[in-house]
Amino acid sequence: MATEIERKFLVADASVVQGLSGVRMGQGYIADNGMWVRVRIAGDTGWLTLKGPSKGMSRAEFEYQIPLEDAQVLLAEHCAHGSLCKVRYIVPVDGFDFEVDVFEGPLAGLVTAEIELDTEDVQPPHPAWLGAEVTQDLRYSNSQLAKTRALPSPALLADAAG
Amino acid sequence: MATEIERKFLVADASVVQGLSGVRMGQGYIADNGMWVRVRIAGDTGWLTLKGPSKGMSRAEFEYQIPLEDAQVLLAEHCAHGSLCKVRYIVPVDGFDFEVDVFEGPLAGLVTAEIELDTEDVQPPHPAWLGAEVTQDLRYSNSQLAKTRALPSPALLADAAG
Repeated sequence: MATEIERKFLVADASVVQGLSGVRMGQGYIADNGMWVRVRIAGDTGWLTLKGPSKGMSRAEFEYQIPLEDAQVLLAEHCAHGSLCKVRYIVPVDGFDFEVDVFEGPLAGLVTAEIELDTEDVQPPHPAWLGAEVTQDLRYSNSQLAKTRALPSPALLADAAG
Repeated sequence: MATEIERKFLVADASVVQGLSGVRMGQGYIADNGMWVRVRIAGDTGWLTLKGPSKGMSRAEFEYQIPLEDAQVLLAEHCAHGSLCKVRYIVPVDGFDFEVDVFEGPLAGLVTAEIELDTEDVQPPHPAWLGAEVTQDLRYSNSQLAKTRALPSPALLADAAG
């Protein structure tokens, strides 16, 4: 069990991932009410993750590697609360690692960057390719994106990125 | 991932577990809508189990051992869908193992016996201490018992056991 402290941003210039190797991820939600139960296939590895409700930028997280075959069945048959695909790139900046997610399918066009922090008061770098912060904007939570399978409206997206 | 094929009975004569060593279990439900997500502490071992909806006496089951500390936090803080305590005894009969659960706390007085089968058409033994079958009676599912934390009404219980 860990406490995940994370901030999330839109990415204003997605060319930051050009030339990097990414990992394709498929993930879906088995439950999303109070506790979020997520199955993820990252490359050829399966993961089962439980996340508690967000308190500011922090939330409880329990993550377990599971057999790939289990993850495949769970993702294909048991994710009633939605699923999505994306490619994740790691972009190091000043000793921090940004996880840059390039979404695919109906969410194509959306690119986000997440950064995990040791404490809430750590001030991460803000490179020029980052857009607006959306840590508190639930429309950009992966569970919400998996459910809607649609980008927030372009106007709102532009507002958030502007 | 496995397919769990299980039949459940009330126990008409709980003395069948006298002299046996049982394992105390605490368990609770993180989700119970479509997929059931259960955390269990059995003795000093933690488990996370996902179960699909029942189809007759069968259901999909995914079970993973997790650190005891994780299970303790999940059970204490993240089981919004209820929890219960029971002691489980294994009672072998004619080459089959009955799991006899003696419930505690608000469910004290309830004793059930479950038997896992390789296929639905296997006919398990029916020793004299078994009562009525409740495989299809959702009131006796552990997730429902954890939620209500109350025995089905005595009249219904007597009916079912009669």
